[in-house]
Amino acid sequence: MKQVYLDYAATTPVDKDVIEAMMPYYSTHFGNASSLHSFGEEAFNGMETARDHVSSLIGSQSDEIIFTSGGTESDNAAVKGVAFIMKKQNNIKKGPHVITSTIEHPGVLQTCRFLEDYGFQVKYLPVDSLGKVDIAELEEAISRGTFLVSIMHANNEIGTLQAIKEIGKIARDHDIFFHTDAVQSVGKEPINVDRMNIDMLSLSGHKMYGPKGVGALFVREGISLEPLLHGGGHQKGLRSGTENIPGIVGLGKACELAKKRMSMDRSRLKKLRDCLIKGVEDIKGSYLNGHPTERLVNNAHFRFSGVEGESIIMRLNQMGIAASTGSACSSKELEASHVLRAMGIDEVEAHGSVRFSLGRGNSDSDVGYVLDTLPGIISELRAISSLWHDET
Amino acid sequence: MKQVYLDYAATTPVDKDVIEAMMPYYSTHFGNASSLHSFGEEAFNGMETARDHVSSLIGSQSDEIIFTSGGTESDNAAVKGVAFIMKKQNNIKKGPHVITSTIEHPGVLQTCRFLEDYGFQVKYLPVDSLGKVDIAELEEAISRGTFLVSIMHANNEIGTLQAIKEIGKIARDHDIFFHTDAVQSVGKEPINVDRMNIDMLSLSGHKMYGPKGVGALFVREGISLEPLLHGGGHQKGLRSGTENIPGIVGLGKACELAKKRMSMDRSRLKKLRDCLIKGVEDIKGSYLNGHPTERLVNNAHFRFSGVEGESIIMRLNQMGIAASTGSACSSKELEASHVLRAMGIDEVEAHGSVRFSLGRGNSDSDVGYVLDTLPGIISELRAISSLWHDET
Repeated sequence: MKQVYLDYAATTPVDKDVIEAMMPYYSTHFGNASSLHSFGEEAFNGMETARDHVSSLIGSQSDEIIFTSGGTESDNAAVKGVAFIMKKQNNIKKGPHVITSTIEHPGVLQTCRFLEDYGFQVKYLPVDSLGKVDIAELEEAISRGTFLVSIMHANNEIGTLQAIKEIGKIARDHDIFFHTDAVQSVGKEPINVDRMNIDMLSLSGHKMYGPKGVGALFVREGISLEPLLHGGGHQKGLRSGTENIPGIVGLGKACELAKKRMSMDRSRLKKLRDCLIKGVEDIKGSYLNGHPTERLVNNAHFRFSGVEGESIIMRLNQMGIAASTGSACSSKELEASHVLRAMGIDEVEAHGSVRFSLGRGNSDSDVGYVLDTLPGIISELRAISSLWHDET
Repeated sequence: MKQVYLDYAATTPVDKDVIEAMMPYYSTHFGNASSLHSFGEEAFNGMETARDHVSSLIGSQSDEIIFTSGGTESDNAAVKGVAFIMKKQNNIKKGPHVITSTIEHPGVLQTCRFLEDYGFQVKYLPVDSLGKVDIAELEEAISRGTFLVSIMHANNEIGTLQAIKEIGKIARDHDIFFHTDAVQSVGKEPINVDRMNIDMLSLSGHKMYGPKGVGALFVREGISLEPLLHGGGHQKGLRSGTENIPGIVGLGKACELAKKRMSMDRSRLKKLRDCLIKGVEDIKGSYLNGHPTERLVNNAHFRFSGVEGESIIMRLNQMGIAASTGSACSSKELEASHVLRAMGIDEVEAHGSVRFSLGRGNSDSDVGYVLDTLPGIISELRAISSLWHDET
C-alpha cells in the first residue's frame, strides 16, 4: 500500500545530510564541550559552527542563540525568564504583565497559566475567524505593567501567520519585550529578527528536518533572563546542562539546508498545498480553516461537516495516509481544539477537523492519492453519522 | 601518538549498540509519539520500551520515569517541582525548606540558590575531609518547614558515595521527600529506589554510553510536581515537549547494556582505578582526594602539591591523555572547586587537582601510559613553579 506522510507539522524525518553531520559527534568527536582537552575542543567547535548556521537563518548574531531541548523549552525559557527577572528586580506594576493570544501553542499558553498561579496577570487576545490577532486590540491591552508580548508567528494547527513585524513594532514603541514562537515557521517563512522587531524567538529542530530533543532560543543582546535550567553555567549562564552536541550539530545543519532550500521548498509546497486545498474544497460540506492566503506554505487544515476528525484520521491511516486532527500534542485528548474554538468554530464542527501538513518528501502523486481516497472516506463516515444531514 | 580518554565522568562516547538502536528513529520510525497514526505508534512503542529499560535498571515502576533533556533538567525539575507545588498549596512553614549539601552538582546547588532568591530557605550541609555528609547533622537540620532533602549519590568530582539508603530512611521517617542526583552512579553502582528509600532520582544518558541531550527523572508514584516545562501535557503533564524519541531509545538501550554489564564493568574498572591510584600515589607530593573505598569504581582524583591542575591537563593533552581538573562544567572557570574547598582543602592545593575517570574503552596499557607520562609532567611543572618547595 502507498504510504503518504502528511503530518510534517507534527514532526519531520531527519534529513540524511543532517544525520551524516551528527554521526561523528556520537562516537568520535564525543567530548564534553566544556572540557579543556582536544575531545572537548572538537565538540565546542561543532557547536559554534551550528550556532552560526542557526543565527544566519534568522538574521541574528551568533552569540544571541541559546540551544535548548526544543520549542517547548524555548517558550518556557523566554516567558518565565523575563517574568522571574521582573519579580526578582521587584519591577512588577499593575498588569496585564504578559499579553499573548488565545491560540498560542501550549508551550506559551500553559506557561502563562503557570505565571497566573504565581501572581502575574495575563491578557489573552482573541482572534478573528481566520485566526488573526487584531493589532489595535493588542495596542489597547498594553498597560504600565506590561513587560512582555508573546505572539506566535505561524499557528501550529491552522497555519495562520500573524503580522509579527507590526506587533514587534508596537512592543518596541512601548518598551516591552516581544517573544514569538516561530517553531512552525522557521525554515518555511523568511525571518529576520532585526527587521521584524523580534526580541526573543523559539525554534525547534524536529519541525525542520533536524533531530528531536534540540531547539534554540534567540535572545536579543542586552536582555536578561532568569534561566529556566540552573546549574553549571553553560551557554553564558542562560541554559545550564551539558550541551547536546550531536543534536546541536544536527540543528545547525538543518538550518543551513533550510536556508539553501527555502525558496525552492516554498514554491513547491505552495503548489502542492493549493492543489490539495482546491481538491478537498470540492468535497461537499468541507471548509478550509485559517487564513486563505496568510498561512504556512505547507498547511492545509479543513473541517468536514457531520464527521469526527479522529475517525477520518483512523480511516486515512488504514489507507496509508498519516495526518492529524490538529496539533500532535493534543491528538490523544478528547477536547475540541482551543484554536478552532477561539476562531468561533462551534464544538461539533471543531471536532470534524483534519490537518494535512506537507513536506519535502511529498509529491504530486501523494496529493493525488489523498484526493482519490478522502472523498470516499468522508462519504462512508457520513453514511454512519448521526451528525450528517445532507441538505441538498 | 597514543590517545587515552580518561574523562568518562565528563561524558562517554555512545556505545555502538546504542547508536544502532537509535538510527531507525531518525528516518524510518520518525513519528511524533503523540500522533494517532502508525508513524506515531512506532515512536510511542520505542519510548515505552525505553521506559521499561530505565526503570528496570533502578528498580522503579515504568510509569515512574519521566524523560528529560539530561541530568541538569532532572535536578531542576525535582527540586523546583516540589518547591513550587508547596508554594502553590501555600504549604510553606518556617524553614529550612530544602536540605542539601555543599558539594552537590550545580544542577542542584544553583537551583537551591534560585529558590533562596524567591523566599525559600536552604540548609547546605558541610562534608568531612573525605566528602561525606554527616547523617546526624542531616537529622538535626530537619525542621517543621523541611519538605525536601536533596543529596547526591556519587560526587561528580571526587567520586565519594553518600549513605543514600540511610539518608532516605531519615527523610522518610520525617515525611520529607528525598531526591538524589545519581547522574554519576547510575550504571556503575547497583541502585534500587525502593530499597534505598529514594523518592526522586536524576540520571543522564551521556554519562553511561547513551546520547547527550536526554536523561530521566524517577518520581515515586503519588508525588506531585509543578512541571518545569509547561505545554502540551506530554508525559502525564509532568514534562511537556515532543519527546526526543531517538535519544530516549538510546537511553533505554544504554540502561539495558548497563544492567547486563554492570558486574563485569565494575570489577574491571575497580582494578584499573586501584592500579592508577597506587601508581599516582607513588609520585611525591600527590594525594588522593575523596574517600579511599566509598568512591565510584571509575574515579581517581588527585591533588599535586606545587602545580596547577590546568597546566597538568594541558600537558597531558599534548601527550594524548584527556583528563580534567574537576567537573567539566567548571573547566573553563578560574575558581577553585567548591567540592574540594568544602572538604577543607586550601585554595592553592585545590587548584592543583586532576580527575581521571575511567570507562569501558580503557585498558591496562592506558593506565600504564598515564603512569609512564605523569611523573615527568609533574616534575617538569614543579621545576618552573614558584609554589613547589621540595622538603625532602
